[in-house]
Amino acid sequence: MSLNLATLLRTSARRRPHAPAVALGPEQLDYGALDRAAQRFAGGLRRLGVARGAHVALLLPNVPEFTIAYFGCHLAGCPVVPINALSVADEVAYYLADSEARVLVAWEGLLPAAESGCARTPGCERLVVVRAPGAAGAGAALPDGALDFEALCAASAPEPEIPDTRADDTAVLLYTSGTTGRPKGAELTHVNLLYNADVVARLFEMDAGSVSLAVLPLFHSFGQTVMQNATLLAGGKLVLLPRFDAGAAFAAITAERVTLFAGVPTMYFALLHHPDADRYDLGTLRTCVSGGAPMPVEVMRTFDAKYGVNILEGYGLSETSPVAASNVPEKKKAGSIGVPLWGVELRLVDAAGQVIEAANVPGEIHIKGHNVMKGYYRRPDATAEAIRDGWFATGDVAVRDLDGYYFIVDRKKDMILRGGFNVYPREVEEVLYQHPAVLEAAVVGVPHESLGEEVKAVVALKPGASATVEELILHCKAHVAAYKYPRSVELRASLPKGPTGKILKRELR
Amino acid sequence: MSLNLATLLRTSARRRPHAPAVALGPEQLDYGALDRAAQRFAGGLRRLGVARGAHVALLLPNVPEFTIAYFGCHLAGCPVVPINALSVADEVAYYLADSEARVLVAWEGLLPAAESGCARTPGCERLVVVRAPGAAGAGAALPDGALDFEALCAASAPEPEIPDTRADDTAVLLYTSGTTGRPKGAELTHVNLLYNADVVARLFEMDAGSVSLAVLPLFHSFGQTVMQNATLLAGGKLVLLPRFDAGAAFAAITAERVTLFAGVPTMYFALLHHPDADRYDLGTLRTCVSGGAPMPVEVMRTFDAKYGVNILEGYGLSETSPVAASNVPEKKKAGSIGVPLWGVELRLVDAAGQVIEAANVPGEIHIKGHNVMKGYYRRPDATAEAIRDGWFATGDVAVRDLDGYYFIVDRKKDMILRGGFNVYPREVEEVLYQHPAVLEAAVVGVPHESLGEEVKAVVALKPGASATVEELILHCKAHVAAYKYPRSVELRASLPKGPTGKILKRELR
Repeated sequence: MSLNLATLLRTSARRRPHAPAVALGPEQLDYGALDRAAQRFAGGLRRLGVARGAHVALLLPNVPEFTIAYFGCHLAGCPVVPINALSVADEVAYYLADSEARVLVAWEGLLPAAESGCARTPGCERLVVVRAPGAAGAGAALPDGALDFEALCAASAPEPEIPDTRADDTAVLLYTSGTTGRPKGAELTHVNLLYNADVVARLFEMDAGSVSLAVLPLFHSFGQTVMQNATLLAGGKLVLLPRFDAGAAFAAITAERVTLFAGVPTMYFALLHHPDADRYDLGTLRTCVSGGAPMPVEVMRTFDAKYGVNILEGYGLSETSPVAASNVPEKKKAGSIGVPLWGVELRLVDAAGQVIEAANVPGEIHIKGHNVMKGYYRRPDATAEAIRDGWFATGDVAVRDLDGYYFIVDRKKDMILRGGFNVYPREVEEVLYQHPAVLEAAVVGVPHESLGEEVKAVVALKPGASATVEELILHCKAHVAAYKYPRSVELRASLPKGPTGKILKRELR
Repeated sequence: MSLNLATLLRTSARRRPHAPAVALGPEQLDYGALDRAAQRFAGGLRRLGVARGAHVALLLPNVPEFTIAYFGCHLAGCPVVPINALSVADEVAYYLADSEARVLVAWEGLLPAAESGCARTPGCERLVVVRAPGAAGAGAALPDGALDFEALCAASAPEPEIPDTRADDTAVLLYTSGTTGRPKGAELTHVNLLYNADVVARLFEMDAGSVSLAVLPLFHSFGQTVMQNATLLAGGKLVLLPRFDAGAAFAAITAERVTLFAGVPTMYFALLHHPDADRYDLGTLRTCVSGGAPMPVEVMRTFDAKYGVNILEGYGLSETSPVAASNVPEKKKAGSIGVPLWGVELRLVDAAGQVIEAANVPGEIHIKGHNVMKGYYRRPDATAEAIRDGWFATGDVAVRDLDGYYFIVDRKKDMILRGGFNVYPREVEEVLYQHPAVLEAAVVGVPHESLGEEVKAVVALKPGASATVEELILHCKAHVAAYKYPRSVELRASLPKGPTGKILKRELR
């Protein structure tokens, strides 16, 4: 009854050892080489005395070593703790301590945060550095006790055997973005991640001819499953971009003949509004996927029409491996997150905890299925609160239409309570996006003496466009009920975003 | 992290409630009705006070109630113990006692064995009878304390909730055919069975348009996964035949426009040699699968040529859910069991326990992957002997060619040791099948004073064909080494077979 995530790489490596697996610029590894590299890193961990079951943290951008170390850890039977590559030293130390990681594999360009984070965490016994020629501080002597990733792999015997892990064993500790409280490590099991990648690969019709452009960070659940794991499972080619840039993305799609692009809505905006947006032919794209945040309907329609593609919006969370719902190629509905993924159940629950059977009545989304995490690492109380009878409570509010398609109304915790009325920011944001001058918009609640909360919008305008605050308020007033329109609008050059490009509302409140 | 086999039925029921799911003659249930029936049986178990985790045995032929009870048990969180429908009372009692089943669901036509088996097993608290109009003894009063399946379901509230079982929880206790020793219950988990059905459905390109003819018994692993579970997962239609009969199979393939046929070699023989074999057009068949026993190359070639199909031979065991290897539609090799299934690893091991890397060297097949059972129920010693570091030792001997295709040489325990030489019966049987008069052949070892064992063949001739013992011996002598050919041949009208049609060699020795 062994089940191990490394099976997806091994099977593709057995079937097509010479097919391209992962590429970063001119650097390319075929499946055989990728699998062997992972085996060597597994051997390196054994050589360092890292026992099976010990946690290994990765502080890496989208470089091939992320994938090598990720599968090497699985071959060694060591759960992986991917850390946001934008983390500062304090955060790195927090993740290392909370996850009880014994080893940190870090990119040379992130060495200051890595070294400091590891040094102040007694349990972090080893720092392994992936050299980054050209990065700031590259080529310097490594800190005392630190090891060179490449040298470690070269000196170690490969560990080809897939370990006898169980389906329900933890494979990855994924820290949730933590919009409230301190980040918690979602324990995702081998079956969670393997099955989710498998179902996603089928849904998006991926095969050995697929070329996926990974602009999403691999340390995040969306990029990890939908890009890395699903692509390698299908035997396709994973093209890495270390950080998103619209021009570089356009160039890579053309040069690599990319067939699958997955991004968050802000990436689609950025592509649409790039000065060279009209120059590129994206004719090789077969599938575009949007997730991570609600996709404004206007943006989707414009992108689809301009490039002749069909963006499929999906929905998921780190705690659900992540994909829980998606539109399907045969039928999509704009503004909807689609239908439950194969093997996943969704239900809507009202404030009293009753399951809502009727269509078009908002309720909190609960998720059950192969993709729901085991729990939050060392947080039995938080786990018990989040998962009851197998149902994971997402905190997101949605309605379901008569066809069974789900539409996110809003985050439960983003909901604004204004004088006894519920205002769902998403609805007002959609109205703002319909205004021709609006590039990005976020609606939040601000404290108000008599109403409790008042509605406020924060808006970034398109380059060269102009609109006054009054005009935007009137625009909203014309399209939503009186209790919903923003009484104030703040204009900003851009909105604060998380690592995937999701707008961070907590920083706007 | 819930994972439950009933998910496959639920997902298809949600997507196509009105599509046909299971049919027996004129009787037909659509997916919605099948799922509701399973929910009612789950409710019935609850009503009887059967706790989650309690074992429920099924003594049923291929009738829709098998599928209803099977998924009803999973919805109730009760592992299923499917019992060979040919069992006599002693055997039923053994299975019930060994599996600690609390409930027995039995077909009315099998009531004598069911009643007696249950009565003498103290742990078997309930007998639930599926009425079988037309069967022997049908319509009689039920034994004291026994319940009517249909009445129980009708009186019970449905249990729609899929229980929060884990991937590694036991879903089915499958008794292995027991060619040596007493039968043991292979504990197959939810992930074992769900993933194997999923991979098989993809391999055989099954979809909502598939129509599968289940002539294989559903109580056996081959019929259960490849027919029932894979078909329902894909959303296709499962056409049941309660027992195999070549004429009935031909008629059903034509009438139901069957796309997928799976059988054991003896079924393919029987079809080929049916007097009306030339009358039927099997043009709707897209996939034919053979497993359960080695498929003689001659039979496969003749069948493929006659009906314009492409039989794909596979390989598996009850302990491996069952499929571990198969030929693939893109490339098959006659006489080969194909390549490892997606997510499954095969290796060959020599008598000294060393892994064989070279091509064309025989070794025992070991299997690791999502499909390997948890263990034998209450048999820690037998489990520890069968599974080491996640590798299940099959007892079958094979070679691997340079393309990675596996060829079964023989069962380790069927191997004949004649005067210090190994004789693999399979090889000699293949030669016998090349003789135009031979319908079925089995080669076994018989005790011999000086050699230890001597080679003997048992042969059934085709109807109307004739061949002498001497002629058959000379035929073999002309094609195999002198130490291999049978010194005696016994002619019989037919060979003894197990429930799937596999020839039972133990009865020939």
